[in-house]
Parts: sequence; C-alpha cells; structure tokens
Amino acid sequence: MTTLSPDILAKLERQAIELPSWAFGNSGTRFKVFSTPGTPRDPYEKIADAAQVHAHTALAPTVALHIPWDRVDSYDDLRRHAEDLGVALGTINSNTFQDDDYKFGALTHEDPRIRRKAIDHHFECVDVMHATGSRDLKIWLAEGSNYPGQADLRGRQDRLHESLKTIYDRLGDGQRLVLEYKFFEPAFYHTDVPDWGTSYAQVSALGDRAMVCLDTGHHAPGTNIEFIVMQLLRLGKLGSFDFNSRFYADDDLIVGAADPFQLFRILFEVIRGGGLNHPDVAFMLDQCHNVEDKIRGQIRSVLNVQEMTARALLVDRDALTAAQRGGDVLEANRVFMDAFHTDVRPALAEWRESRGLPADPMTAFAESGYLARTAEERVGGTQAGWGA
Amino acid sequence: MTTLSPDILAKLERQAIELPSWAFGNSGTRFKVFSTPGTPRDPYEKIADAAQVHAHTALAPTVALHIPWDRVDSYDDLRRHAEDLGVALGTINSNTFQDDDYKFGALTHEDPRIRRKAIDHHFECVDVMHATGSRDLKIWLAEGSNYPGQADLRGRQDRLHESLKTIYDRLGDGQRLVLEYKFFEPAFYHTDVPDWGTSYAQVSALGDRAMVCLDTGHHAPGTNIEFIVMQLLRLGKLGSFDFNSRFYADDDLIVGAADPFQLFRILFEVIRGGGLNHPDVAFMLDQCHNVEDKIRGQIRSVLNVQEMTARALLVDRDALTAAQRGGDVLEANRVFMDAFHTDVRPALAEWRESRGLPADPMTAFAESGYLARTAEERVGGTQAGWGA
Amino acid sequence: MTTLSPDILAKLERQAIELPSWAFGNSGTRFKVFSTPGTPRDPYEKIADAAQVHAHTALAPTVALHIPWDRVDSYDDLRRHAEDLGVALGTINSNTFQDDDYKFGALTHEDPRIRRKAIDHHFECVDVMHATGSRDLKIWLAEGSNYPGQADLRGRQDRLHESLKTIYDRLGDGQRLVLEYKFFEPAFYHTDVPDWGTSYAQVSALGDRAMVCLDTGHHAPGTNIEFIVMQLLRLGKLGSFDFNSRFYADDDLIVGAADPFQLFRILFEVIRGGGLNHPDVAFMLDQCHNVEDKIRGQIRSVLNVQEMTARALLVDRDALTAAQRGGDVLEANRVFMDAFHTDVRPALAEWRESRGLPADPMTAFAESGYLARTAEERVGGTQAGWGA
Amino acid sequence: MTTLSPDILAKLERQAIELPSWAFGNSGTRFKVFSTPGTPRDPYEKIADAAQVHAHTALAPTVALHIPWDRVDSYDDLRRHAEDLGVALGTINSNTFQDDDYKFGALTHEDPRIRRKAIDHHFECVDVMHATGSRDLKIWLAEGSNYPGQADLRGRQDRLHESLKTIYDRLGDGQRLVLEYKFFEPAFYHTDVPDWGTSYAQVSALGDRAMVCLDTGHHAPGTNIEFIVMQLLRLGKLGSFDFNSRFYADDDLIVGAADPFQLFRILFEVIRGGGLNHPDVAFMLDQCHNVEDKIRGQIRSVLNVQEMTARALLVDRDALTAAQRGGDVLEANRVFMDAFHTDVRPALAEWRESRGLPADPMTAFAESGYLARTAEERVGGTQAGWGA
Repeated sequence: MTTLSPDILAKLERQAIELPSWAFGNSGTRFKVFSTPGTPRDPYEKIADAAQVHAHTALAPTVALHIPWDRVDSYDDLRRHAEDLGVALGTINSNTFQDDDYKFGALTHEDPRIRRKAIDHHFECVDVMHATGSRDLKIWLAEGSNYPGQADLRGRQDRLHESLKTIYDRLGDGQRLVLEYKFFEPAFYHTDVPDWGTSYAQVSALGDRAMVCLDTGHHAPGTNIEFIVMQLLRLGKLGSFDFNSRFYADDDLIVGAADPFQLFRILFEVIRGGGLNHPDVAFMLDQCHNVEDKIRGQIRSVLNVQEMTARALLVDRDALTAAQRGGDVLEANRVFMDAFHTDVRPALAEWRESRGLPADPMTAFAESGYLARTAEERVGGTQAGWGA
Repeated sequence: MTTLSPDILAKLERQAIELPSWAFGNSGTRFKVFSTPGTPRDPYEKIADAAQVHAHTALAPTVALHIPWDRVDSYDDLRRHAEDLGVALGTINSNTFQDDDYKFGALTHEDPRIRRKAIDHHFECVDVMHATGSRDLKIWLAEGSNYPGQADLRGRQDRLHESLKTIYDRLGDGQRLVLEYKFFEPAFYHTDVPDWGTSYAQVSALGDRAMVCLDTGHHAPGTNIEFIVMQLLRLGKLGSFDFNSRFYADDDLIVGAADPFQLFRILFEVIRGGGLNHPDVAFMLDQCHNVEDKIRGQIRSVLNVQEMTARALLVDRDALTAAQRGGDVLEANRVFMDAFHTDVRPALAEWRESRGLPADPMTAFAESGYLARTAEERVGGTQAGWGA
Repeated sequence: MTTLSPDILAKLERQAIELPSWAFGNSGTRFKVFSTPGTPRDPYEKIADAAQVHAHTALAPTVALHIPWDRVDSYDDLRRHAEDLGVALGTINSNTFQDDDYKFGALTHEDPRIRRKAIDHHFECVDVMHATGSRDLKIWLAEGSNYPGQADLRGRQDRLHESLKTIYDRLGDGQRLVLEYKFFEPAFYHTDVPDWGTSYAQVSALGDRAMVCLDTGHHAPGTNIEFIVMQLLRLGKLGSFDFNSRFYADDDLIVGAADPFQLFRILFEVIRGGGLNHPDVAFMLDQCHNVEDKIRGQIRSVLNVQEMTARALLVDRDALTAAQRGGDVLEANRVFMDAFHTDVRPALAEWRESRGLPADPMTAFAESGYLARTAEERVGGTQAGWGA
Repeated sequence: MTTLSPDILAKLERQAIELPSWAFGNSGTRFKVFSTPGTPRDPYEKIADAAQVHAHTALAPTVALHIPWDRVDSYDDLRRHAEDLGVALGTINSNTFQDDDYKFGALTHEDPRIRRKAIDHHFECVDVMHATGSRDLKIWLAEGSNYPGQADLRGRQDRLHESLKTIYDRLGDGQRLVLEYKFFEPAFYHTDVPDWGTSYAQVSALGDRAMVCLDTGHHAPGTNIEFIVMQLLRLGKLGSFDFNSRFYADDDLIVGAADPFQLFRILFEVIRGGGLNHPDVAFMLDQCHNVEDKIRGQIRSVLNVQEMTARALLVDRDALTAAQRGGDVLEANRVFMDAFHTDVRPALAEWRESRGLPADPMTAFAESGYLARTAEERVGGTQAGWGA
C-alpha cells in the first residue's frame, strides 16, 4: 500500500474546504427541479446537513451563506447554531439575479436607482459579514445581455467599476471582496465579467483586498484552467476557488467527477504556487446535486478534493524538474502521471481512522440513519431552493 | 432597389413557419424567470397572441401545442378558437421531463412501469392529434445521466427503440413521429439522443413516417449544421426544423440573431435539397423570449426566416456551379456572399403591402395597442410558463 | 496489491493494438517538423522500430502501412522482414491528400478524371493488401472546402458514395473497407465525412464489409465518445479505433495522456458492447510524436491502453447494475470510479514478468541501447515523414 | 441606394490595413502545402504583389515583414522598392518557432543560451525596424508544451517576463512591442501566452509602449471577441489586430468569410471605443490562402473590412442608446441589425470610382493580367513559403 509521508499528512491535516449552504437545498435546470424528502427548509437545517459532512470527514469546517436565501432574524443565533454543530459560518455570497429590477443588470444597470439598490444589497451583505465574522464577500454577477446591440458593453464596464468601488470602500478591516467570472449563462450574448482577465482588471483597480474567484466550471471549452491558477497565484490575485466539474457548460457536477485528471493538474499548480493552505486562497465547493443525494454528494466532493490533493502532493518534484530541464518529455510525463495513478485511498482511510474518523465516510454516513431521520422530521414547510 | 422575381415571390408566398405556443408564456433560466404584464394565462390566450403574428406577417398559419402545458377540456373548442382567429393547430409536442417519476428517464427508464407511463402520455398526445387534426408528434427527450456510471447507455438505447416502436405503431394514417436530438441539457454527462446520427438510426428502425427533427441550437460548438441539413434531405429523413439561435449552448435566442450567415447557409441547403415548401419538412420556431417581448420576438423571428430565405433564393445557382466546377474558390464565394449581402428588406416590404399586409410588421404591431390592451385585460390568474 | 483475476488476465493476454508505421517517422505542425537522430528512412526501418514495441510489451503484433509513404518494391519481402522481427503487416491506409490534383477533392472531386485517379489509388491499396495479407483498407478523407459556397456539399456526398462503391466492389473475400470520419482539418469549412452519422450512412449503403473507423481525436469539443462507441457496437458497424488523445483539435497526442478517464469510459463501453478482442473491432494507434521520442511514445501508448483496459475490466458489473436499477447515482458512480482509481500497474508488472516480458517496458527499452544504436547507424538518407 | 455621409466617407478615407508579406507565399496545413504558378520567390516579389492590393483598393498602404522569411541584404533597398510601388514597410514580425533549438521554448526556455539566442533574434528585428522605419515589433510565441508535466508553467512565465523586458528595453524611441496571444497550436497542452489576460499582464509589466495584439482567430470556441476589443481599448492596451476568420481553430481564413456579423460587431466596438483610425491601433491581416488565389484573397479581405466598417459606421448611435436606456431589447437589436443588413456595396463602388479607383477591384485585378504575367515570369527559384 502506498504510504503518505508525515509531511504530506501534515498538509492534508490543515486542508479546509468550505461548503455552500445552497448545495443542501433543491436545485435543477430550467426544465425541472426535483425535490427530495428531508431537504432543509431553512438555513438552520442546511447548516445541520453541512455539519454532517464535516463530522464524517474533518474537511469542511465552514459553511458559506447566500443572501437573501439564508436571511435569518439573528445571525448571531445562526452562528451559535453552527458552532454548536462544530462548524463556522464562512463566505457571504450576494445575489443580484432574482429581482425583477435586475432584468437588465444590477451593478451595471443604466438606471442609477437600480445600481443603488444592488449596492445597498451588498452593504447588507457586509453587515451580515460583521455579524457572522465572515471574511469574504463573494460577488458573482449574472449580468449581461442576450442580443448584440442590447447593451452598451463599455458603459456597463465603467459602471461596474464604480459600483464595485463603492462596495469595496464599505469593507471593514480584514474583509475582502472576491469577484467571480463566468463565460456565459444566464446571459447568452455577453457577460459583464466573462473571463479571468476582466475580473483581474476590475479587482486590480480596487485594491489589495479585492481578489479573483475561479469557478472551475466557468470557462470556454478547452480552457487550460491550471494555467489560470498558476497565473493568478503569480500575480497575487487568486482569492478563492469554486470547485465543481462539467462536461459542457456550467454543469455544477461533483468536483472531480467529469475529469479527475484536470482536478489533479489544478491542485498541482495550487501546491507549486504556494496556494495550498495559504490564507489568501479559499477552497470552496459550488455544486448542484440535481439528481443525487445532497449530503452524500458533498461528502463525495470533499473526499475527491482530498484524494487529488494527496496525489498531487506525491509528485516527485525533483525528478520532475530534472526531466523538464533535460527535455525528456516522456519521463516528465511519467513522473507526473505516476502520482496521478497512485491509489491513495487505502492510506487515507487508515489515516482517517487514526484521527477518529470513519475509514469510509460515505458508508458511515449512509449507515448513520441521518437521511431517514431528517426525511421523517422535515415534513411541512417549504423546501429550500434557489427561490428568492 | 433589389427586386425579387415572380418565381422567388411565389416561393415566399407559400412559406409557412409554425409557432410554438410556449413562446408566448414566460420562460427563463435556472436562475430566474422574469414575468411580463399581459402574458397569456391559458392556451386560448397563447393562440390569440400567435394569431397576431400571422395577422401581421401571413407567415405563421399554425401553432404547435405542448402537452400537458396546453391541455384543455375540449380540443375541438380550441381548434375552433384558433380557426376563428385565422390560424390552425399544428404539431403536438410531448413532455416527459416534468414529472418526478422521470428523474432517471422516461421512455428509457429501467422500470417498465415508468416506461409505460411515458408511453401512455404519448398515446394521449396521439389522441390529441386526432382531435386537433395535427399531423406530427414531436418527441424531444430530456433523458440522460449526469455522472459516468449512473446509467446503462446501451440498455437505454434498446429500451428507447422499444418505447418508440410502441408509440409509432399507435400513429394513425397520415400521422408522423418526429424525433429531436440534443447535444446536452438537462442531462450533463450523456443524453439518449445526442446527435443526428442517433436520431437517424432510431427513426430508420421505425419506418417511413418517422423522421428527424433538427433544432438549430442542439449541436456541439462548431458543428456545420447545413451539412446535416443536406445529409438528412439526401437520406429522406428531415422531418422538421426547430429554428432558434445560440452563441454558447441551447440559448434559444431569436432565429438569425446570433449568426445570420449561418441561417442563410442552412436555408440555402434547404432550397438546394428541395426542402423548401416540401410537405415533409416542417418549419417551426422553438425559442425563449426571456428578456424581450414575446409577440414582437416571434414577429421578428418569422421575418428573419423570410428575409434569409429570400436572400438564399437570390443565389445565382448557375454562376455558383460554374465557379465550383472551375475550382474558382473566390468567385464561388463571391456569388454566394453576394446574395447574402443583398438587402431584400425594401422589396419584401413593398411586396407585403401589395398583399394587404403592413410594410413594417414590427411597427404595425407596436402601434396596434395589442400589448397595452392585453396587459390591462389579463389580470389575475397564473401566467403561463413551463410549469407542469 | 490489487490482483487481476485469471479471467481478466486471459482477456488482457489476447489484447492486440496495431501500430501505425508513420508514428516512427517525423511529424509536426504546419509551423515546424522537428527531426531526431535515428528516425527511420524507409518502411523496413519503421517496422524494425515497431517490432521493438512488441518485443517489450507483447501488445503490438501488427503494423499498419500507409500508401504511398510505405511503398516498397516487394511487399512479400517487407512481410518477411516483419515476420522475422516478430510482427505482421496490418491495415493498409490510403492517401488522397498529398497530390496537387486533390486540392479540391479526390473521391468527391467534380472532375471524373481525378475521381478515377483516386479510385485507382485505392485499387493499388487493395493490391497491396493481397500482397501483405492485410484485411482492412482504411480510408480517411481530407476532402472538404474552406469557404461557404466553394463546394456543392450534396453533389460531393453522392460522388463519394459512387467512388466508395467502386472501391468496395474491388475488395477480395474477407477484406473490409473502414471509413474514418473527422470533424475538421485540413478543410476548415466543411468536411465530407465529418461525423459518425455520415460514415455510418455511407458504409451502410455499401454492405456488410464496410465499417466505421472511430478516431478518438476527431470529434467536436465535448462530444461523448463512449456513447458513439456504444451506438456503433449496437448497430454492428464499429470497425476500428484510431487511438490518440487531444485537448483542442486533432492533437494526436499519446492515447490516455489528455484525459485518462475518458479512455477508461471508452474501454468500458467496448467491453460491455462485446468489442474487446472481437475480430470486427480493430484497435489501432494514430498519433504524432512531435516533441517526444517515438518508440518510447508508442510503448507508453500501448501500455496506457492495456492499463485502462485492465481498470475497465475491474468494474463490478453486478454492483453497477444494482445501483443503476436502484437509482443510486452516487453508488453507481462509486463503483465505476473505484475501478478507475485502482492502481493496476504493480499487478500488470508482475504478470508481465511471469510471461518473460520486462516488468517496466519503458525502462527496459531505454536501457536496451536501441536508440543510441539506431541514431548511430541511420546516418544519411532522408528521414521518413509525411512527405508524399 | 444607401448613401454614405461625408463624415463616414472621411473616416473610410483614412482607413489603412496592413498586409502580411507571407500571405503572398505558399501556406497550407500539416497535411499539404499546395503551390501555385506565380508565387513570389523573394521579399521583393511579395511586396510587388502587395502593392497590387493597394493599387486597386487604396486600403493597404503598408506591408508587414517576417524575419527571417523576409531577410534581405539591404532593407534600405527593399524600402525603396516598396516606395517605388506605392507602399511602405510596416510591422516587423519575429520568428522563434522554426529552429531546432526552439523545440522546447525560446523566450521561455530553461536553457539561458537558447533564451539568449531568441532575444538576439529580436534584437536583429529591432535593427531591421531601424532600417525599415517600422514602428512595431510584433511577437507571437509558438511556445508551450504538449503533455501535462512536460513544462514548468510558472517558471516559463517568469522567464518570459525577463526576456520580454530585455527586448523591450532595446526598443528605440517611438518603437513599440506588441504581444500576441493564442489559445493553442502549435502547442497542444499549454501555450505560454494563451489569452488576452496573460498578454495584458505581461505587457503591463513592461511599460507604455508594450501593447496587446488581438488575432481574431486565436480564441476558445464561443469567445465574445468584441468584448475583449472593448476591454483592451478601455484599458488602453489594444495595440493591433490580426484579422482573419475561422470556423474551428486558427483556420486563418479570409476576414469576414466565416462570420460576417462577428466582424461587424468587432468593428462596431472599435469605433465606439475610439479605435478606428487611432494611431495606437494597427489594423493588419494575418491569413493563409491555402486553396484560393492569394492576391485576390487579400483584395477580398481588405474590401470585407472596409464594407463592414462602413456598415458599423451606419449604426444610429442615438437611437441605439435610447433603446438601450429604455430596456427595449428588440428595438436596440433592430437598430443594430439594420446597419448590418444595409448593403453598402453600391455606395462604396461609386465612391471608389470618384477617387479614381476601380468600382470593382476584384474584377479589375482579374482583368489586369497580372496573375498570368507573373505566372509566366516567375519561373525557377524557390517559391516563398513558411520555410525557415
């Protein structure tokens, strides 16, 4: 059995992957949202579900909130609820895509009243951050247009800068703004932050505490994502990851499910660029469990990240460098693939047990009866979803 | 001003483009469905809206229905309603994607009970066809899987054949089954009818009255769609078009909006292959007007198809053939582009007027006051959308 | 260590992957072809190199030839040369893309003289097949056009049928025609056989001994290749594979290098569809070693196929079927991924040794001194490449 | 007939599109380079051909050179030759992709000796610029890797910066460095400058006289290129265009041939962003006429750019802004498309004649007998191509 060195285990010990509260609610496509018994009906139940993931893996100590989906009367109370369950509240995600006013934009809208409204929403998010102790305000913008000519691309970019600046200036000490980019959807002709270059240009114009968020599903077909990881780390602007995977568009599948080798390459660049366990670089999931169980899907996801991190840590960097310098393409590739093909699962299971965790978290959770219990208890009310 | 020959005008005179009833209801993305005042609340109001398109353009004499969205107590009554408004009922579209039972498939499901249910739904559609006098049953399948290993690709294909055979055998004389294919969405790993080859193989196994439906938004990036048009016409299996346009995925934008030259090329192949005004080849729209007015969007769409058809009819086929035979790439391209770049709009406006139609249907409709009137009248009730 | 069952080993024992003679010559991009010392200068030297791959792996018993690149005075002599080295001659590949006459097509050309010339070239290939004892004539067509309007898509398709029919009728007993498809390149607007559907329609019109060749690099971005494998096996028309891998276009990289999980999924469908070790389905490589050593690249390639075949054979089919039937998406995916993540390399190394083969073929070949020896011996002459 | 206003004509009057010398030599794909009678054999003949384009269109006053392809004994002499023919020498393009030393990189290579060699090559280019009076040094890098693990992505990026800095510092007053980016090819796994973000980050680190070059064929499928145009103009970093068009990869087809509407949208953003006739933004072609006549292909290309510029200038900006502000998607799109669909060709022909130019440059050139004359004269020697 492959063994993992104490050095590697020490790095894995510190690994933390934030869970999105909305992964525990219902999600779907424009065609249908399927519901499941036991789906949480409020933020408290979402956090309870998230805590199960952490309890079985020790990998997911924080939960990201989405405002307004996770609005509660008392964030203090929600924070204590989380702490009681062994987790903490994390990144605050804003939402400017579910109000009729935002049909043609929010932070970029032609109308100053609507921009103001969208900015105020972010001010509310900053207030929530103070209450929850969150560091990061993550902004993903659904803004764009569907038809050529519909929108003034340049004017929107300038207005985006102004709006972001106003929000950035509102941040407290130690708080950050993280700007996500996305290739397309829900806008189909242009998106106001479509690529890492635009996000980088926008956050660079704000200041040191503005960073780029890289969602692994938000690129054009064929994009070399690990190259962007390398570049953003090099430029000091990689603020966070939204992990998931995809075959076609922003499929939001379980991270590592569509192309495990890509995940390996991304994590290798994270490690080489000093991004693993670095405070600047937040690891998060952003997935939709449309057809699979949600808690199990999240456990599977954090395990996938952990396993691929372990593999990436196994790369013999000295041998790799030697092969690269010698121009031995096949030897360099062999060293790289050797780590990828190494089965680290038995070693991780053993190590997990040594820490008092279940060797097989998926099975342990399945046998815990949690799903049956919540399906029975969570009757009545409205299941959480993406509704405003 | 470019004039259109009597021969071309005679062909345009016969052009008919079917409208989808659902284009007049609300649609959107998984993130948000925006609503508009005046949106129809039932099939009767949808047909009234569709009739406006025909009244202003003489291009859209029929309306396709979607079951169950357009279920009514009396299809006879709905048919008379349509006829009173100057249109007829057209293709019947089935729906096997909005029932919890269909989470893992319908016609392909592992469970015979669910396959039976899906087949019975199609039997209901055939019954509707008898009542409405519709010729075509169009089947688009949302079926597929999200994760490798989730589904037995081969078994599903075999079950699909059996289910389709059962449905096909139920068709009455003169009725047809038209099978649509789609590259991806809502399934993200595999789709059971992902490409024209699969649709062709499946309908070929059924018989002469089973045909392929080509939706212009359902292909992989870069696919040469006019080639497929040519091939299906050559094989005698092009049953219908779902026209729309796209930049990225199945964006369902207005036909001709994203790449007008592609629409031109498609129509040129339709014409050359004998598909224009041929009874076998139904022209339909399948679009989503998420952010624009719906009736105006449909008027714009049928005009786009008409204008591009006129341009494609202008191609000097003799000159083109001569250039192709002579290997003169640039001359062949010039002949082709010359037709595309010719502005046929003034000639079409004049011709329209000569037929008692408004020269500018978009403006005429805007000035008709219909939108304001329906917005005022259609208060209360539930706006139509994609809901089951 | 994972052990491989006798049943799995028996299947692996029979696995045979044909090597392309041209993989041992120089190749490159339109920008540059790099040369290497020791590159073969004639078909005899190419076969000698190919024999090294088989000697170290027992996986590559045959070598495909490309006409005219591999024209020799006596194919009998070449055959004996191969047999002396422990390999046999395999598929014959035709070439209709390197003659000035073929600028605008070969089998599809408007000019009957040029079609005749291209057909005659295939007759020559059939003659070679008789001399070499080859079963398969593989046809990849570079034909297409670069500009809309340049070519008559439909006429070309009809002429293609006629040309293929003439060639098919020339085949001897037990000989097959295998028609490859390709999404694009070298033609940039349309390709005459762009997708599996077209190849399938064309070979179906010929007869039972005409089959489809699936090159894993010849699809649109995002295409689910294993679905096509499943479908062609289901339709009884999968004749052969050209294995390689890609990130963007037809990159012709080492199979399994770009997306090992995709290779796993493809091989799983081959196995489930009965295509492994089935006489109808030929496994071949078609790669370009532009920057890496060629013989080592080929050894790496056949090992990659073998390792992924072993993993795909490890899938617990009963457990998978049970999970699929139960609609347990995550369990089905777990069973599938478990096989993929299992490290079969130690077991294969052990088994290899038990058959008198080197445990590590890459190292054994490197230490054999073959490369240094041939670099010294093969001085003068012209290195083989893609030149006509 | 649509008339073009004096204001629009004044803008068109100033339009200048640089031609690449290499467009007049042979080019092709990795499969085949077709040759044509009359192809230039040296830089003098290429410039003579380029001068024909300008003589017939008044649109192409300068010719870009490529070193070493256009090395001559006396650049002074070449400059006089150009001036005698009515054109000037323009941008100097470097070449670091056709030397065996550059197999694994040039400006990014691990070996300082090879980096030095590549830098020295650029110093030579700067020397040429002094001799030719060229302002711009354009750098396109073929550098990258084919296999994951082959290269140290980060180290290469850092070395790239150092190399570019050394070259940048060598520039004379008024000279600029323009850095092109490209999605892929000839490298298939990673490219060192794959996107505008990387080019922007690299040139920003150099200084004010370093700019980004946008080649319209160098993006991922589906990329919104006009958005990048807008962004680079906004950031003050758009240095030049390489115009061409594509369906799949870097097809290098005639600009406007694959998607004329995209060209329109790009030119509209150029105009709105102040980039038309702005000294910072150089318009160039970079195309390959693999199957069509080269001089005619270049004439077609500059006319396409001119025609689309005229259309883009026709957009009623006030009406567009009003519709955008009012959220009238269909009206905004109508205003935009109205300009695109307007046939400006007759007005341009008339205006051309008024300036003493042929109304139809394509026909005028064809009738000039130039092609027949050069085919007769240019016998012997070696036809120019991409050879080192």
